[in-house]
Amino acid sequence: MFQINKKIPKSLGRAGIISTPHGEIQTPAFVAVGTKATVKSLTPEQIKETGSQIVLANTYHLYLEPGEKIIKKIGGLHKFMNWSGPMMTDSGGFQAFSLGAAYGNKLSKFIGIEKLKVEKLNDLEIENKRAKITEDGVEFRSIIDGSKHFFTPEKSMQIQRDLGADIIFAFDECTSPHASKDYLKEAMERTHRWAERCLACFSSPGQGGGGVGLFGIVQGGRYEDLRKESAKKISGLGFEGFGIGGSFVKEDIATAVKWVNEILPEEKPRHLLGVGEPIDLILGVENGCDTFDCVAPTRMARNGSLYTSKGKINILNSKYKNILKSVEEGCGCYTCQNYTSSYVSHLFRSKEMLAATLATIHNLYFINNLVSQIRESILSGTFQKFRNKFLGTYKI
Amino acid sequence: MFQINKKIPKSLGRAGIISTPHGEIQTPAFVAVGTKATVKSLTPEQIKETGSQIVLANTYHLYLEPGEKIIKKIGGLHKFMNWSGPMMTDSGGFQAFSLGAAYGNKLSKFIGIEKLKVEKLNDLEIENKRAKITEDGVEFRSIIDGSKHFFTPEKSMQIQRDLGADIIFAFDECTSPHASKDYLKEAMERTHRWAERCLACFSSPGQGGGGVGLFGIVQGGRYEDLRKESAKKISGLGFEGFGIGGSFVKEDIATAVKWVNEILPEEKPRHLLGVGEPIDLILGVENGCDTFDCVAPTRMARNGSLYTSKGKINILNSKYKNILKSVEEGCGCYTCQNYTSSYVSHLFRSKEMLAATLATIHNLYFINNLVSQIRESILSGTFQKFRNKFLGTYKI
Repeated sequence: MFQINKKIPKSLGRAGIISTPHGEIQTPAFVAVGTKATVKSLTPEQIKETGSQIVLANTYHLYLEPGEKIIKKIGGLHKFMNWSGPMMTDSGGFQAFSLGAAYGNKLSKFIGIEKLKVEKLNDLEIENKRAKITEDGVEFRSIIDGSKHFFTPEKSMQIQRDLGADIIFAFDECTSPHASKDYLKEAMERTHRWAERCLACFSSPGQGGGGVGLFGIVQGGRYEDLRKESAKKISGLGFEGFGIGGSFVKEDIATAVKWVNEILPEEKPRHLLGVGEPIDLILGVENGCDTFDCVAPTRMARNGSLYTSKGKINILNSKYKNILKSVEEGCGCYTCQNYTSSYVSHLFRSKEMLAATLATIHNLYFINNLVSQIRESILSGTFQKFRNKFLGTYKI
Repeated sequence: MFQINKKIPKSLGRAGIISTPHGEIQTPAFVAVGTKATVKSLTPEQIKETGSQIVLANTYHLYLEPGEKIIKKIGGLHKFMNWSGPMMTDSGGFQAFSLGAAYGNKLSKFIGIEKLKVEKLNDLEIENKRAKITEDGVEFRSIIDGSKHFFTPEKSMQIQRDLGADIIFAFDECTSPHASKDYLKEAMERTHRWAERCLACFSSPGQGGGGVGLFGIVQGGRYEDLRKESAKKISGLGFEGFGIGGSFVKEDIATAVKWVNEILPEEKPRHLLGVGEPIDLILGVENGCDTFDCVAPTRMARNGSLYTSKGKINILNSKYKNILKSVEEGCGCYTCQNYTSSYVSHLFRSKEMLAATLATIHNLYFINNLVSQIRESILSGTFQKFRNKFLGTYKI
């Protein structure tokens, strides 16, 4: 499933190719987030034009609406949303937790260049919220209608197989970054037992196959001993690849992520869950990750925050009204090739839907172009030079 | 500027070609409404794919935001919004009135298959509202910031020339459909004087030219004598084409519109302002109109109301969740070629932006395909057959 093309000397990083039933993914790669079987505001043709190779959809959301059975009947997610390239689904665990247990508690898995903004919750509080975690699985209430649902590792496998993505994830418990170490350990061990149940389910007759890859998720928070224990355990179970879960700030990438990747088997792909800011991508690759997903590039785009090689700009700033050049000169994206900053800012001020489309295209192109440049630099042996130049130019 | 290809026997209707600096328009044609220099939720490439030949932008909105001078600096509307085909701008008169005088009074120019839903306003009330009409022009307040502005015929010409559309309209006063006949007559006569001022301004050195066509607007409400007087007066002034203004319900097309088109010179194109529902298009062509603009197809699309050959459907109806066929079988639009009703309804239920895009593409394609079929039927001498079949099948 995974082939390494070239490694970064004296580093965990590498460029490679992941093969899936719907085509290859040249890594490092950014996975465009298409939560509800749509990358917000884009058609699949537009997604492809941004250089995206793979789309992630969310098991939790699609299970609730329209339901995985309808999607299966249509022929799976690819047909449902008209995307012919590779796809991933997450396990549903994170949303069952964040939209269940943590719902309304300002607890968010906000990742990237900003510090985590969370409220402390003790384990008991988590237990009393909308999700209830037991050895068997997670009971949660729908964000749509408050109805009760129960996800188990086996249920997550069934839903994901019905959705029909190329890469699916084992059901895991994503804990609060402020949970106690004791609770983190308990949740991690439960995640390990769930991982074994997912593999058993996936390997049972009629369940796996079709070239679909099941990835195990490593947890363990910010504790070195837990991360290493989790990486060792998950490595030994026979997954096709790995996801690194949890809540990360930039500082965690060279620690928690590195600890894990030093242990995970080199020959299998590693996905860093929920990370996708430019600097984090560079640090993530350097520390051994191959693929990344994150809502930030698309969500920020919809708020008018656009990437440039010098950092983010807010296109709603009044000065852009009169700027008759593209958002970034030399950018090859559809937006920059065809529209001025003045027009894009006009669409935002006018609250026009095309604003989100043009901004999303720009940000996704920027991120895809960045990972593509990282790949090229690895292949040509100039990663360090590229890395240092980018980090020297890009201002947070 | 206008060439007639073929006429409908014993009728005012015809198929023709309007030539503009940005290409030809095969008529009858529907003009896609791009109020703020964007057809809501679509890129120009998507607009073109629906079969749209021409886009209308609104003078009032673009004057307020971003301002016509910025658009002129970029090289005009075509460059600003990246649309290379023909364009129209309206005169700004209707919005100065409807968003000024009538603002907040439930007075709307709702046109088409529904009855006008209006509150009676007498002339005095109109005078006291946010717009003030004098012989010189209209004073109104911005819907954006409440600031005061003054449109005159000359100002409308200057703004429209700066915007740079291919077909522009003379500044007119669009009255309430419930205004008294006396007031209608007064407003119509003022519109005639404004028309002469627009022509004088457009003809003055450095103002006209470039192959841009100035269209005069016929008013007169639902009164036969006023409509005929207006058509005669406007016909004699030397415009390149005509707009038929006012508020129409279906019943008015065979009366008010017909009265006008029996008088307007056959060799010039006629645009019916604000009309675009399927049945109205057929009646409009039959009664001598060549082009039409209307927000209905795109606005309804954003609300989940989609055209089919049997009438409109509401894709939010729960039954569509399980319909694995396209919105209309055999429809050649991008949406029907690539997505099921189930997916489109999922996007609407999920409040995803792609819902508006896919629905708008479908509705615009439907309307463009309808006018294209009308044209073909005129050219092949089968208009009556096509008309009767369509009216027999399409249910309001």
